[in-house]
Amino acid sequence: MPLSPDTIQAAIDGKTKPVGSLGRVEDVAKHLAALQDTLSPRAQTCRLFLFAADHGLANAGVSAYPQDVTRQMVLNMLSGGACANAFAKSVDACVSIVDAGVAGGPITHTALIDRRMGPGTENSLVQPAMSAAQVDTALQHGMDFAREATEDVLALGEMGIGNTASASLVIHKITGLDLDSVTGRGTGHTDAGLQRKMDILRTAAARTPQQLDAKTSLAEYGGFEIVMMTGAMLGAAQARKPVLVDGFIASAAALAACHINSDARKAMIFSHISEEQGHGPLLEEMGAQPLLDLGMRLGEGTGALLAWPIVKAAAALLRDVASFEGAGVSHRNDAP
Amino acid sequence: MPLSPDTIQAAIDGKTKPVGSLGRVEDVAKHLAALQDTLSPRAQTCRLFLFAADHGLANAGVSAYPQDVTRQMVLNMLSGGACANAFAKSVDACVSIVDAGVAGGPITHTALIDRRMGPGTENSLVQPAMSAAQVDTALQHGMDFAREATEDVLALGEMGIGNTASASLVIHKITGLDLDSVTGRGTGHTDAGLQRKMDILRTAAARTPQQLDAKTSLAEYGGFEIVMMTGAMLGAAQARKPVLVDGFIASAAALAACHINSDARKAMIFSHISEEQGHGPLLEEMGAQPLLDLGMRLGEGTGALLAWPIVKAAAALLRDVASFEGAGVSHRNDAP
Repeated sequence: MPLSPDTIQAAIDGKTKPVGSLGRVEDVAKHLAALQDTLSPRAQTCRLFLFAADHGLANAGVSAYPQDVTRQMVLNMLSGGACANAFAKSVDACVSIVDAGVAGGPITHTALIDRRMGPGTENSLVQPAMSAAQVDTALQHGMDFAREATEDVLALGEMGIGNTASASLVIHKITGLDLDSVTGRGTGHTDAGLQRKMDILRTAAARTPQQLDAKTSLAEYGGFEIVMMTGAMLGAAQARKPVLVDGFIASAAALAACHINSDARKAMIFSHISEEQGHGPLLEEMGAQPLLDLGMRLGEGTGALLAWPIVKAAAALLRDVASFEGAGVSHRNDAP
Repeated sequence: MPLSPDTIQAAIDGKTKPVGSLGRVEDVAKHLAALQDTLSPRAQTCRLFLFAADHGLANAGVSAYPQDVTRQMVLNMLSGGACANAFAKSVDACVSIVDAGVAGGPITHTALIDRRMGPGTENSLVQPAMSAAQVDTALQHGMDFAREATEDVLALGEMGIGNTASASLVIHKITGLDLDSVTGRGTGHTDAGLQRKMDILRTAAARTPQQLDAKTSLAEYGGFEIVMMTGAMLGAAQARKPVLVDGFIASAAALAACHINSDARKAMIFSHISEEQGHGPLLEEMGAQPLLDLGMRLGEGTGALLAWPIVKAAAALLRDVASFEGAGVSHRNDAP
């Protein structure tokens, strides 16, 4: 029989600290204990999977940056120069960089994991971004990464010029949330740039029925990096591994995962609320309460990495902190 | 000539990420660069100083826990069983535990640092908690800890039954903020307990003039652990070492430090907003914007420890992340 919520709560309340005094950290501890069905949850090591891919939609003008930047940033990540690398080193997480489908030819580098689904997606303004078979293959790649990782906790991040646009369309089609409310400035559009992006997204959205199921949404408007994140979340849930959801784009992948299998939600820890406009409405739709609010909107898993030490500490609360009885510490004056 | 804010901003904006996309992390990076006057700030190691002391006021009934708990928790910390120990291990910080004046006889333990100012303070309901000379000595001890620590960053925490009451009185006397607005439930008072605490604090406050300078406030109502934290903050500022301010009680020490020397503010990073009622008004009074909001109210430096990885990552942004030029990454489409 699985551990009851009362048993987990009692274990936390027996630790040498005033009841409830660790707030959200206690929530994470309860979450970990329930997910792994143990009062000694494992969350001592973490790996960031960084999925990079390009988007046919990018050439339509949805991004403030040229598409080449995806490839350039992958090279930067491979040489350890990106923010994700610096943050991962700071919080003692490992990094795996996956080419899920960057435009141009394959990138040759010993550290790069090649799962190329193609040189970027098709242009979803005029046709589906990918086939249903590609969705299934990319989901399987993601699931394999999650299941085969030897680390306790997974963080997922992405790089792909144009992928906030892709995420907005996927969210809009799955949830029915207004396209305007889930579309933002991405990497830094001006007012005019945002207007252009909105016009393109409206045209792209009009191509298909108002709402779509998760897999069809991914096929029509997704990106290879987004689908692999979705797969990794499904795999993490199967393996009962906590998975740190990063920002707006990772949350779109999380939404899709929950619609494919509602059990996926059990493994997810939402790390931060992004500055990207659509993230708040999406988190609300999912009933998710992120741990951090630092005004970040970079992606690359940087928010997930900064939330990782909190998850590690939450597990340590259950594993390492003494109980009142064990440590010989007195209870409150008014305790029964 | 010190680095200008524009120079620091330009260095951050040259990193391979959209401008401003790391939000508050960029603020911390700027803070560190300005404090240390370098574009390669040092924030790779951290030590938590945990100051423990007792309060004469505790015997008047201001706490939900018996006074013995201070000593019991020091023993728990010395054997590695407290939340502070577990969190420090999780985030790779060292811990020093200081007996600043715990009730009863000296505690014998090889790992304990003895700076006992006495077996707790006097009862500030009827007399000053300590003498002016004791304030100066405790400040000096704190300054010495900060200056002699070999770690890059300091985190400060406390343990002392009754010390939210002491902090409320110190804040009230220094700022003139209403006593009700800066007094809360501490480690977990019921409504009746909070009412009793308020009555005691009002009586104690009525003993002295409405407002007092910082050192007099500390002498009348402070605690040895609070004054040592104040001293450590003053020492950190002199040594240009970032100091992570924990919750309500540490913020009272920070307030006193800023009133003793306004330069002290430059070294302070406010780690989190506590659930303790008075913390919000105090942070607002100080114009401080904490990094985390996790509903915590434990003390022991636990909030400071969870903010430490963010500070480490902020320094890594400046030290380790490649520039657009260095990494050969293109600028935005609309860049000049």
